Amino acid sequence: MTKPRYTDLVLSLPATVPFVGPETQERARGAAFAARLGANESVFGPSPQAVAAIAKSASEAWMYGDPEVWELREAIATHHGVRAANVVVGEGIDGLLGYLVRLLIGPGDAVVTSDGAYPTFNYHVAGFGGALHKVPYRGDHEDPEALLAKAREVDAKLVYVANPDNPMGSWHDAATVQAMIDALPEGCVLALDEAYADTAPANAIPPLDMTHPRVIRLRTFSKAYGLAGLRVGYALAEPDFIAAFNRIRHHFGLGRVAQAGALAALADQDHLQATVARIAAARDKIAAIARDNGLTPLPSATNFVTVDCGRDGAFARAVLAGLVGQGVFVRMPFTAPQDRCIRISAGTDADLALLAKALPRALAEAGSR
Amino acid sequence: MTKPRYTDLVLSLPATVPFVGPETQERARGAAFAARLGANESVFGPSPQAVAAIAKSASEAWMYGDPEVWELREAIATHHGVRAANVVVGEGIDGLLGYLVRLLIGPGDAVVTSDGAYPTFNYHVAGFGGALHKVPYRGDHEDPEALLAKAREVDAKLVYVANPDNPMGSWHDAATVQAMIDALPEGCVLALDEAYADTAPANAIPPLDMTHPRVIRLRTFSKAYGLAGLRVGYALAEPDFIAAFNRIRHHFGLGRVAQAGALAALADQDHLQATVARIAAARDKIAAIARDNGLTPLPSATNFVTVDCGRDGAFARAVLAGLVGQGVFVRMPFTAPQDRCIRISAGTDADLALLAKALPRALAEAGSR
Repeated sequence: MTKPRYTDLVLSLPATVPFVGPETQERARGAAFAARLGANESVFGPSPQAVAAIAKSASEAWMYGDPEVWELREAIATHHGVRAANVVVGEGIDGLLGYLVRLLIGPGDAVVTSDGAYPTFNYHVAGFGGALHKVPYRGDHEDPEALLAKAREVDAKLVYVANPDNPMGSWHDAATVQAMIDALPEGCVLALDEAYADTAPANAIPPLDMTHPRVIRLRTFSKAYGLAGLRVGYALAEPDFIAAFNRIRHHFGLGRVAQAGALAALADQDHLQATVARIAAARDKIAAIARDNGLTPLPSATNFVTVDCGRDGAFARAVLAGLVGQGVFVRMPFTAPQDRCIRISAGTDADLALLAKALPRALAEAGSR
Repeated sequence: MTKPRYTDLVLSLPATVPFVGPETQERARGAAFAARLGANESVFGPSPQAVAAIAKSASEAWMYGDPEVWELREAIATHHGVRAANVVVGEGIDGLLGYLVRLLIGPGDAVVTSDGAYPTFNYHVAGFGGALHKVPYRGDHEDPEALLAKAREVDAKLVYVANPDNPMGSWHDAATVQAMIDALPEGCVLALDEAYADTAPANAIPPLDMTHPRVIRLRTFSKAYGLAGLRVGYALAEPDFIAAFNRIRHHFGLGRVAQAGALAALADQDHLQATVARIAAARDKIAAIARDNGLTPLPSATNFVTVDCGRDGAFARAVLAGLVGQGVFVRMPFTAPQDRCIRISAGTDADLALLAKALPRALAEAGSR
């Protein structure tokens, strides 16, 4: 019997995934990781109020979530001083990026990103047949001028930039990002991924101007808020742009439990600030551990530290393998020359003690290959 | 400044939603519903073990869910006597239908469904530019022969049928569905929506043959399992078909909390069977209330009863408005002649007491318009 008749686009797609999960690695190695420092989750956990709200909502889990996500959108709007009409909530930034690409990109449409930036964005662009154009990082930073120059050159409908950046942890100041917004070519949308806004210096985040018709800001509860396991992200933009998501989004995609947890987390800004302080302290500890081992921690505005291993990608991959082999889950940039680095998420003191113990051996083994 | 350059397809889409949520209606009327009987949720709630698992997972909500959904897929496979390679888990059947349509349907590709069947399926087909062909119901049942005839006529890549059916509650026996599978045209996929399989008679569900390359069976935790608020559904099909979802699905779309809740719900088959019994009793009560008011309850294999109001769509809409106005949330079929009916989900005794109280007044007001 014949196979399903997949679209030509689907037939052209590789059966790869943007990220292999730590659970997959755990199943392969037959043991759980002792320290989970690879996915930029928040080991410091969500607000106790969010934990309580999730537990409370469990008995209400027989009801679908509000498809308008009204209460959470209102709360997000109040929190940021914008209107609910400026807010769309979705299944994490990943889900929202998928919708955004689908709104704008058909086969052959030009999209610009940095070479080595977020793989899941690239996955979505490929998934809708977009033509992805990449520009290099510049000194471990995404390069706004090069991104815009490429966008003009290829008449891009969409350009992606993360500030602060993943996987490098670097950031631009608000003036630089605002200059990028101001110079955005006509007809080009800027997807400004601010997943790490909560851990960034205040002067890295430009004002939330909701009047520009082609700038969309992406935020998440998966990082500093510690709710990756609920999958709630949101985007902020001009109301017409936000309304366009209603044409294609999965209206009942955000469950009642997830909405309740995110709402409680947003209300507990004390916990967020305490977490941000713990993240900052953990960054300092990771940096110290790196230096103690002769490596160079890069400055970070995120909940992770990217550590320059000082040699090539093969060496860094060997260091990473040595850490993973000792039960310390970390990841690394995929693309040269950033792949000379490994990326270590903020951890508890116990996590970082394991890192400190495992790193010398990983380096020794990598160096003696 | 210019607007974003949406795709031509997106520009062609209406800014409508498949369903208005009860919360939207509650905000509009300024009061909560006293009985929530419109969305075919399970008022009897999820398993206490699922509630406990959700609460327990809340403190682990800082971790992303396993993108392979390994443990839940293994458990589903064991439950059904198939292999994990036959199972894809997603963000409810809605989410999986979106992926399925995206896999198969590009602009102009032919799709077949019943006129008045699941609006969210139609929403997805429109969203990917498919050409939707509808055939009428036949005696309040979906019509397998007409669906297949239309599929052959238009060379459909995809045909949708729900068994048991929503919104009519009707069902076909397994032999009829198997005959439809056996007669499926080459090149056509059958999406067999079995959201209500758990409440159906055993002889309504054909064997789970996982060898057909173009049949996909859709199941959910949102109905009898009482976990609509988690948004977990799954599909069962031949492994190559399942693997195709990995090319486009949102790999991290299913959160850790949702996976934990669904896993615990699946393990508590006693609760499921107790719920199914309560649903059956509630169906009988709804039928009795309908008869007491001179209306005709249709036979149902689902967790709702579709009640024939005996006149035209305008009358049924007025009855529905009368119930909603008295705080009883119900819905109704959108399409004539099924729109002579209203659709009432299984409720608690308290819910159904409210229904019994509200229905006479709703009928009186509708009759005297």
